[in-house]
Amino acid sequence: MKRDKGLLIVLSGPSGVGKGTVCGALRKHDTHIRYSVSATTRNPRTGEVDGVNYFFKTKEQFEHMIENNQLLEWAKYVDNYYGTPRTYVEETIASGHDVILEIEVQGALQVKETFPEGVFIFLMPPSLKELRNRIEGRGTETKDLIDSRMTIAKDEIELMDKYDYVVENDEVEAAVERIKAIVTAENCKKERLIDKYKELVEE
Amino acid sequence: MKRDKGLLIVLSGPSGVGKGTVCGALRKHDTHIRYSVSATTRNPRTGEVDGVNYFFKTKEQFEHMIENNQLLEWAKYVDNYYGTPRTYVEETIASGHDVILEIEVQGALQVKETFPEGVFIFLMPPSLKELRNRIEGRGTETKDLIDSRMTIAKDEIELMDKYDYVVENDEVEAAVERIKAIVTAENCKKERLIDKYKELVEE
Repeated sequence: MKRDKGLLIVLSGPSGVGKGTVCGALRKHDTHIRYSVSATTRNPRTGEVDGVNYFFKTKEQFEHMIENNQLLEWAKYVDNYYGTPRTYVEETIASGHDVILEIEVQGALQVKETFPEGVFIFLMPPSLKELRNRIEGRGTETKDLIDSRMTIAKDEIELMDKYDYVVENDEVEAAVERIKAIVTAENCKKERLIDKYKELVEE
Repeated sequence: MKRDKGLLIVLSGPSGVGKGTVCGALRKHDTHIRYSVSATTRNPRTGEVDGVNYFFKTKEQFEHMIENNQLLEWAKYVDNYYGTPRTYVEETIASGHDVILEIEVQGALQVKETFPEGVFIFLMPPSLKELRNRIEGRGTETKDLIDSRMTIAKDEIELMDKYDYVVENDEVEAAVERIKAIVTAENCKKERLIDKYKELVEE
């Protein structure tokens, strides 16, 4: 059945929960979901490709995008900008395809202001202890920085209320299956289908 | 994660759409869904077992159940009563297990009055022509009766608006997968999980 509009799916959650890993695993599944690519001013790491991992921009280019309302959401971390280009997302859902954004909690709340009809998924660690283990496991951060990340994570979990779904990331493939199920279920929502079926009856 | 309450899932749709076939196929999958058994006053057919296919009741027993509010929904078709015993459904969801009812459209709307928080799924034929083919395929009904069933089906499709989800029964296993996805997604709904996670943060 032809669809008028695709779903905007937002996958978010506290830093360290494994958003990138889950989204990467989802991409290996045969779904019809399209993936939004973020823009950033940080330098490409070895192997990263412009337009695949990120759209790499200069500070001037990025600020121009902000000024011209070309970003659905953006934030500055440390000294670099990160954001979601608006056009790709809007064109993809307008053409009837589902699109997923993998973004930080603050960015997700910005997107919700523009797209309240989006599907907002909060990725949750099995426990706070496990979240700490995952952040420590990266081995890149001092104890103070880890403590500060944990405080932010707790605040972000309080924002769960703004989301539609909570997916526990106990195991990556299990989390992926839950996200796929959410997308399937959302595409079966009565609100999204009823007009087409009313046409069917009137034929 | 322990759950307080299970889901009440109601699978309904026009006569001939294949509710029984889809529900039978779902039972062969390894889900944790429990199945409600209807009560009826019709005679058992060969091979049907009391308490498995139906609870077989006398007319007096059934009317006693109606009077004592022991049925979530009931209806009379031709000369026989059909209904859903209340206790099994209430005890199953109270114990944290999901339960599915496979019932007619009018019965589903009765259940919705008692359980507005239920998950109401409307099983839809791919087209009205296909629905007619399926009813004709049974080879048990006259043209007049088929026409009358089609009129009822159209009226029932108008009631789709009262449901949460619409699942197309184009192919039985595809419909089963959609229903399983809906159950998974509903179990990830924020409203059902937020209290547990708030406890997690406060630990």
